[in-house]
Amino acid sequence: MIPAGGSGTRLWPLSRADRPKFLLPLTGTDRSLLQATFDRLAPLIGPEHVYVVTGARHAAAVAEQLPELPRANLIAEPAPRDSCAAIALATGIIERRAPGAIVGSFAADHLIEDVPAFHDVVRQAVAAAAQGQLLTIGITPSRPETGYGYLECAEPIGTSAQRLLAFREKPSLELATEYVKSGRYLWNAGIFVWRASVFLDQLRARRPDVAAPVERIVAAWDTADSVLLELWPTVPKVAVEYAVLEPASLDGLVSTVPGDFGWSDIGDFETIGALLGHDVDGVTAIGGAPVLNLDSDGVVAVPSEGRLLALLDVHDLIVVDTPDAVVVCRRDRAQDVKRLTELLRERGLADWG
Amino acid sequence: MIPAGGSGTRLWPLSRADRPKFLLPLTGTDRSLLQATFDRLAPLIGPEHVYVVTGARHAAAVAEQLPELPRANLIAEPAPRDSCAAIALATGIIERRAPGAIVGSFAADHLIEDVPAFHDVVRQAVAAAAQGQLLTIGITPSRPETGYGYLECAEPIGTSAQRLLAFREKPSLELATEYVKSGRYLWNAGIFVWRASVFLDQLRARRPDVAAPVERIVAAWDTADSVLLELWPTVPKVAVEYAVLEPASLDGLVSTVPGDFGWSDIGDFETIGALLGHDVDGVTAIGGAPVLNLDSDGVVAVPSEGRLLALLDVHDLIVVDTPDAVVVCRRDRAQDVKRLTELLRERGLADWG
Repeated sequence: MIPAGGSGTRLWPLSRADRPKFLLPLTGTDRSLLQATFDRLAPLIGPEHVYVVTGARHAAAVAEQLPELPRANLIAEPAPRDSCAAIALATGIIERRAPGAIVGSFAADHLIEDVPAFHDVVRQAVAAAAQGQLLTIGITPSRPETGYGYLECAEPIGTSAQRLLAFREKPSLELATEYVKSGRYLWNAGIFVWRASVFLDQLRARRPDVAAPVERIVAAWDTADSVLLELWPTVPKVAVEYAVLEPASLDGLVSTVPGDFGWSDIGDFETIGALLGHDVDGVTAIGGAPVLNLDSDGVVAVPSEGRLLALLDVHDLIVVDTPDAVVVCRRDRAQDVKRLTELLRERGLADWG
Repeated sequence: MIPAGGSGTRLWPLSRADRPKFLLPLTGTDRSLLQATFDRLAPLIGPEHVYVVTGARHAAAVAEQLPELPRANLIAEPAPRDSCAAIALATGIIERRAPGAIVGSFAADHLIEDVPAFHDVVRQAVAAAAQGQLLTIGITPSRPETGYGYLECAEPIGTSAQRLLAFREKPSLELATEYVKSGRYLWNAGIFVWRASVFLDQLRARRPDVAAPVERIVAAWDTADSVLLELWPTVPKVAVEYAVLEPASLDGLVSTVPGDFGWSDIGDFETIGALLGHDVDGVTAIGGAPVLNLDSDGVVAVPSEGRLLALLDVHDLIVVDTPDAVVVCRRDRAQDVKRLTELLRERGLADWG
């Protein structure tokens, strides 16, 4: 399954409420992040076995971008209820349609360079999940990143699955450096694999308040008697790690497989520049629209198709141009672009949100 | 007459080859610079006595912006041949239609705050021109500006016309400071008043190579036998100050009237910010399109109608947005925006010029 949610406000104004990050072609090709995710999974299990969980307002766009996705495998949430609700719903529907299924959850906004290596790791995770463990695929850390949570293992990271000791919050730089040095920590990329029935049993045991309404929705899913609109708003908003995986890990039920396949998430414009930028006249430019530069450096420029972006003696900026809005941002404030979307609402400019 | 020429490349991408500065509403109202110039002159002499000299490619736009301008008073140059050619042509046509006329030349891209004071100064210049002098209206300097030429007078500047000693080139800051301190210098704003026949006599004496083809063009102007396209390319390109006024001033034929009527030229975005900007959230914004600011200061922002311009923690920039191009420029490089238009041509992006 591909949970396709999240607003991507750190990528505003490229990412909009109506056209969120996963629908954008931020992959270095014409394919959107969602399409690239589908393209990675379909060869592994067949397109007919891919599911997408997304917000109702994006269901039409998802269907349009993924013509190979069976319409019955497109699960539309009436409103976002966080990851536990979305993943539980899809897991429940899959288990009902294919009892005994093993399910993986792969976010729609990741970039992966080495797809064969990714497939190998997923197969390893599937094998371990078949034994009854809840699997997370952890990412071998390449730097002491403070923007991700970490997975703590008992043994030094090798190439095979091992028991997960604990989930760790986003650390300080000092702590992150220790984690990486120890060789026992992986980045939590939020990639999970499990036997559907195992996950649903754990959900029922740990969070009956989530399990109960989701089970009623699932029971009615492929019937005319939909209870979705009535029950969905009652499902508690909680992250799947917090609701199920952390408590289950304390009981020794969670394992992790290390993944070293060139993983990145497309978080903000700084990341986009690093991953997808090419040099135009000393400027890191994204895409093929024209950039004109005189005496500038340290600029990440995202020009807009059919428009021109020109720079004169400016430094360490992010400049993002779109058909109806332009942002100029100090480079080390890339993370705070989302605060502009909050300001939009305060100023009555929500049309641009 | 209003010579409406000049490309305004320091105001690119607002100003374009097809829509130069004088056609833009850079006046703080909906009126363009050209319209504001017309509005200042028409009450003084009647709209039927206003002439506009402009490039053939802009004649239709000028006619559209000035419906009160008689069609016969719109003089279209096939190509720009500098100010002497344009002014000589209009002066010749006016003299032919109204022998003995007194003619003033007022650039299309000036802002003037105190219109009654401007009218008084023009009337003074007309009175002096009637006596046979070539008049320039000099601007009482408010600062040691290095971007203008200066008019040197023999006596301290008072309120009445006096003989002009010399035209002075754009000075260094040191020299400009001396000029202003001496009280004998005015800015040369390129505003001239003369009896048409006096100017044409001087032109014939000083620059027969300009006078001869222009006289032939003028002689044929209101007839079916146009020689404009044939002769215009042969008219030497030269500034009217250099061709006629400087040499005439050495013979004591040029006088100047000081003008203190809140004059500015709309030269670059820094000037536009100072003259037309209003504060939006700590940003100097032009026009009414929305600007969103978080933690920025020292920015001159020119947003584009129907688009949003957002700033995050950036400083001392000029940001100009238009329907098809955006420029981000270090604030103290406002003068060099014109260099971007040169780069455009080098990079094959002349469509945006």
